[in-house]
Amino acid sequence: MMAPVAVNLGIKLHVLAESEGMSVATATTYTVGDYTDYATLAAFAEQVDVVTFDHEHVPTEHLQRLQDAGVTLAPGPDALVYAQDKLVMRHKMAELGLPQPDWRAVSSVTELLRAAEDIGYPVVLKTPRGGYDGKGVWVLNTPDEARQAETWFNGEHEALLVEAKVDFRSELSAQIARSTRGETAPYPVVETIQTDGVADIVKAPAPALDDATAHSAQHAAETIANAVGVTGMLAVELFHTPDTEAGFMINELAMRPHNTGHWTQDGAVTSQFEQHLRAVLGLPLGSTDPIVPYTVMKNYLGAENADLYGAFPLAMTKYPHAKIHAYGKSVRPGRKIGHVNVLATDGNLDAALAAAIDAAEIIRHGRTDY
Amino acid sequence: MMAPVAVNLGIKLHVLAESEGMSVATATTYTVGDYTDYATLAAFAEQVDVVTFDHEHVPTEHLQRLQDAGVTLAPGPDALVYAQDKLVMRHKMAELGLPQPDWRAVSSVTELLRAAEDIGYPVVLKTPRGGYDGKGVWVLNTPDEARQAETWFNGEHEALLVEAKVDFRSELSAQIARSTRGETAPYPVVETIQTDGVADIVKAPAPALDDATAHSAQHAAETIANAVGVTGMLAVELFHTPDTEAGFMINELAMRPHNTGHWTQDGAVTSQFEQHLRAVLGLPLGSTDPIVPYTVMKNYLGAENADLYGAFPLAMTKYPHAKIHAYGKSVRPGRKIGHVNVLATDGNLDAALAAAIDAAEIIRHGRTDY
Repeated sequence: MMAPVAVNLGIKLHVLAESEGMSVATATTYTVGDYTDYATLAAFAEQVDVVTFDHEHVPTEHLQRLQDAGVTLAPGPDALVYAQDKLVMRHKMAELGLPQPDWRAVSSVTELLRAAEDIGYPVVLKTPRGGYDGKGVWVLNTPDEARQAETWFNGEHEALLVEAKVDFRSELSAQIARSTRGETAPYPVVETIQTDGVADIVKAPAPALDDATAHSAQHAAETIANAVGVTGMLAVELFHTPDTEAGFMINELAMRPHNTGHWTQDGAVTSQFEQHLRAVLGLPLGSTDPIVPYTVMKNYLGAENADLYGAFPLAMTKYPHAKIHAYGKSVRPGRKIGHVNVLATDGNLDAALAAAIDAAEIIRHGRTDY
Repeated sequence: MMAPVAVNLGIKLHVLAESEGMSVATATTYTVGDYTDYATLAAFAEQVDVVTFDHEHVPTEHLQRLQDAGVTLAPGPDALVYAQDKLVMRHKMAELGLPQPDWRAVSSVTELLRAAEDIGYPVVLKTPRGGYDGKGVWVLNTPDEARQAETWFNGEHEALLVEAKVDFRSELSAQIARSTRGETAPYPVVETIQTDGVADIVKAPAPALDDATAHSAQHAAETIANAVGVTGMLAVELFHTPDTEAGFMINELAMRPHNTGHWTQDGAVTSQFEQHLRAVLGLPLGSTDPIVPYTVMKNYLGAENADLYGAFPLAMTKYPHAKIHAYGKSVRPGRKIGHVNVLATDGNLDAALAAAIDAAEIIRHGRTDY
């Protein structure tokens, strides 16, 4: 989704893609290769001015070595590690004095049991690295369940993260861009609704959030962006906890355009994809103002139906104001393959939400009838 | 500019480009070839489901032959001819009873002098085909000037078009989409400001136009679209003539996404490029509603400066809410190489206009200082 923006600004994009089947048809150039292989990364980096990312899974040690070799990385490994490693992140948030769930690093079931007792059940056990969309996350409700987590202490990670399962009112996302020149631009804080650990719906801006908490969350995002030296987009995923002093707790970080910011493609003056490119190239940042009172984003995942396009006529007929985005990925059940944005130009959030959900469901299930 | 939209909807675009240097980097596939050569067109057409156009210069006889051979053209030659040939268009507008300047077809200077006398000086002499951005147009103020037009009667055209030079208040454009299924969707009528015969600024919607005239102009566009069987975008360029009964006169037609519709990329729910693709593919049309009270579009042409991007930092710093579009074309003086859209979210048209003009000028002249 960065490609159309790059072309529009005359920026040449060169993508390192895992396989031919990736949705990179729009890229000016692309190379197929393994992002866990240092030689592949180094050869790729030689051909470009700036390297940026659309996921956090490139090994930190490779990034460090590339940086040492003079490659410009945006964000750099010193920043990216906070999005790669949840334990490193928790340590940093504590150091910055930002609100977060009670947490411990644990290296054995014995330590886990002790920590969980301390924190209070239920707790959430997380692998510090490699988790994604609900993978690498385990909710433990009792000591018995904690004992079953034995298999996770397999030596793959030095330690795991265990933290309080937060009783939140809703989930939020505070996105901010920070450029190579240190300029920052926060987006409005949005509400995200997760389904099975996957971001599913975004309401922008968050309708049930008071201004003070929203500003405070934006300020936390700015503190993090500056403290760890982010370049590009940062998403701070938050729990909305109105009963706590801060009103929110920090859940996770992502350093790239993020699913919770897809609404900006149609609902903000500058999309997160354009903003990311501006930030990593050291261009001035664009306005993050919303264009309309509310925008709703609804993802659609792959289902049993492989021909999404067959459902476009029905979705478009019912919802002429819906903005349909298709990623051109092959369809696998549960895979994110597109989203729908609906702008509530008249401020009617409920109507926009209903339209986005129904349009996405029509496409997901390949419906062609009313 | 159709390419990013096509990718976003999962539509495979295959471009027949004049040369390698064309701005087709985003196209899924492209072929370099001569659009005036029938064999090239036929070989190209075999590889796609629907052929559409981003200019009107493919010879009508080639299009007719392709259609006879079973190629799906959108728009078809029977419709496109009204955008290709101004004399054919004038005849049709007369037949439809739509308001237009007094006009004659003339085949010699003698006929021209007689027609001009009849119509009253000043008159405008036009080649029926091949004119573009002010080329092929000659304003004649006196019989002496008309006599100098002798060279234009060189046998290249059977007849030329001469018409009254209209004393208009402003120029307007009424765009409408019509799909292969006959569905139509009009955009708001916009005001266009031409400089040296080239569209330069668009104010959307036209601020000084009364509702009745706007609706009447939209209705005229719908009449034309249905009567000639347009598929895709139709732009009806109009003179705003408040002193006449209709309040407007028809100037010219274009059957493709048009410069006067570039504002829709940022200012309307559905851009003209997405709408064109929907229309030629027989998909339901999207909402043509503006998102904000006013949007301003300002073109920038090539000037002495070849490095446009060097001016981006200044333009972006001064105008964080400006949407900069660069076509990736090589820079030649006077060539359209990009445009700037500014959304007046607060309804302040004058401020948006000033911002768009200044941002475009900064880019055009490669300014890097305040």
